[in-house]
Amino acid sequence: MTGTTPAPFTAADYRARMARAVRSAADAGLAGLLVAPGPDMVWLTGYTPTAVTERLTVLVLAPGRDPVLVVPTLEAPDAEEAAGAAALTLRDWTDGKDPYGVTAALLDDRGRFGISDNTWAMHLLGLQRALPGTSYASLTDALPMLRAVKDSAELELLAAAGAAADATFEEIRKVTFAGRRESDVGHDLAGLLRRFGHSQVDFTIVGSGPNGANPHHEIGDRVIQRGDMVVLDFGGLKDGYGSDTTRTVHVGEPTEEERRVHDVVRAAQEAGFRAVRPGVACQEVDRAARAVIADAGYGEYFIHRTGHGIGVTTHEPPYMIEGEEQPLVPGMCFSVEPGVYLPGRFGVRIEDIVTVTEDGGRRLNNTTREMVIVD
Amino acid sequence: MTGTTPAPFTAADYRARMARAVRSAADAGLAGLLVAPGPDMVWLTGYTPTAVTERLTVLVLAPGRDPVLVVPTLEAPDAEEAAGAAALTLRDWTDGKDPYGVTAALLDDRGRFGISDNTWAMHLLGLQRALPGTSYASLTDALPMLRAVKDSAELELLAAAGAAADATFEEIRKVTFAGRRESDVGHDLAGLLRRFGHSQVDFTIVGSGPNGANPHHEIGDRVIQRGDMVVLDFGGLKDGYGSDTTRTVHVGEPTEEERRVHDVVRAAQEAGFRAVRPGVACQEVDRAARAVIADAGYGEYFIHRTGHGIGVTTHEPPYMIEGEEQPLVPGMCFSVEPGVYLPGRFGVRIEDIVTVTEDGGRRLNNTTREMVIVD
Repeated sequence: MTGTTPAPFTAADYRARMARAVRSAADAGLAGLLVAPGPDMVWLTGYTPTAVTERLTVLVLAPGRDPVLVVPTLEAPDAEEAAGAAALTLRDWTDGKDPYGVTAALLDDRGRFGISDNTWAMHLLGLQRALPGTSYASLTDALPMLRAVKDSAELELLAAAGAAADATFEEIRKVTFAGRRESDVGHDLAGLLRRFGHSQVDFTIVGSGPNGANPHHEIGDRVIQRGDMVVLDFGGLKDGYGSDTTRTVHVGEPTEEERRVHDVVRAAQEAGFRAVRPGVACQEVDRAARAVIADAGYGEYFIHRTGHGIGVTTHEPPYMIEGEEQPLVPGMCFSVEPGVYLPGRFGVRIEDIVTVTEDGGRRLNNTTREMVIVD
Repeated sequence: MTGTTPAPFTAADYRARMARAVRSAADAGLAGLLVAPGPDMVWLTGYTPTAVTERLTVLVLAPGRDPVLVVPTLEAPDAEEAAGAAALTLRDWTDGKDPYGVTAALLDDRGRFGISDNTWAMHLLGLQRALPGTSYASLTDALPMLRAVKDSAELELLAAAGAAADATFEEIRKVTFAGRRESDVGHDLAGLLRRFGHSQVDFTIVGSGPNGANPHHEIGDRVIQRGDMVVLDFGGLKDGYGSDTTRTVHVGEPTEEERRVHDVVRAAQEAGFRAVRPGVACQEVDRAARAVIADAGYGEYFIHRTGHGIGVTTHEPPYMIEGEEQPLVPGMCFSVEPGVYLPGRFGVRIEDIVTVTEDGGRRLNNTTREMVIVD
């Protein structure tokens, strides 16, 4: 994993992304961007240090200046092997030197900068000390949509991750549920995700019976019973891009109420999906899904937002939530995942990743949204 | 791993640590400490969130106030299960609320605070915005020795991790080196560390022949040859506490020069170890080891510090380095790891974890420091 990302991107791709980021920064009135190791750096340069430590590594992007990656000397050989290295100038610093001075020399000393959310506070303090006239905004506050619009190669990778998650569902529906622990099924899910090419498993939620009514229940020792609804929500990273899908299955024959709730959630998910098209505000996707659930009388039991973006991470902007007026743009990718949670009884959630096309939306998850009966 | 640490510490232990931290903060002129998820939080509370995200989790420690853990409502049930939860007041905040306002209400609005090095910059910015009259210092800058002195339970865990690393060495010396890749031996090392109880492997350095002359070479595809020196430096976490040991082995019979260099490093390591006793400055450990190497004519080839602390992480203060005047205190734990690196030829490093006793030092690694010949 050192120094490279498995994604098939070239230095030219990274150069274009960095140029886009600089333009966005200038448009937002920023003097530049400071990018720490993590998803922003991976997306902009393809570089992931072996470990994130107290030694400063930061990408400096500013209008009118070529991108500079400040790295510890010890890690410069790794950085030189990153897919985006040819689009960067490396500026290394040795132990005992002041890395903030090295970075400050690249910055407008009165500027306002966007800085990656996950930059270590000690580094921000070091920059504030080196350049007392500067100010900072979190990158997500300043440029929330920086990574939101995916190009065609990214869409292919997201589609492949989605297909791997779908293959996982097709296998998991064949396993025995009744009499096994949630954690056993979760273990199966993780193994399947890896078998279908995931390098990282981010979550394997198995919410059976009453546990399914807690949308943040992860996994437990509960033994799954015949007659349980079971929420299966799983995903991770494959070739550097994320998957995230949810299906709710039933162990044996469901009751009429269970069928009804599942139908309501399925209709809500369909309505959310159908609301997706360029120019529509994110909140309209949430409203469309929520209206179906509210009209069916379950409004108070849909207790989370309808969706979140996905890319080099499994949760990122844009968010499908009331109040988010950002218009959808072709290439954006996000989840549509309404749910109904009946406390102490059961929950139902159905989730697909959806991408915005020129005239609507396209699902990256395509397993059946009908209720699947398992053993 | 959620919500708990496997270490056998009680709420009383965590209460005592938090009280000690508050006293240290007051002595340093700070109005309090802000502690993010990571090693500081694990050490002070036993709490590790499932994932570190954009949702603020922060421990607030201030003189005259009971410790408060600010957590997202969704994660409060996990936090309540932490080993130190009984020593804490939980203050939860729900999505859509301002977590910085919740935190600011607990702070002196003109105070100076120590803040964990790895706190996300977006959170520091949020606090600076909520309380413009406050100022901040990185916790390592403000209180470098906060976690440096280990109590007896911690020492037991570090000794057990050291014994597991020693058991790993006793097995690895039996495997075949000649004709296998460094990465194959590294894979063996990782498997052995796990077999002997490590839950996390932090590094498995296998530096054969000329690769051993780069102290930061991690592992590669080089096929190990008969006649190679091989630096083996490996460690990780067992039951929440770290191991880190290095032995340099030889494939077949060494040359006279190889023996001489190994003898010099062994004598330097012994001298560093013998310098360890309460009241001695950290830099004296470095000087003692370095003098042996310099006297033997290899001074320019010992290109790193002599050691670093270890505890809930594998690299932390105190550092055994020229200029570090911190006196040693019983209970401190750190590596003593001099080396000689002959560019393009070979390297030798020998490393033990050492703890300071009432009248000297005690090694937590006890495999032979003689050169081991392998096949």
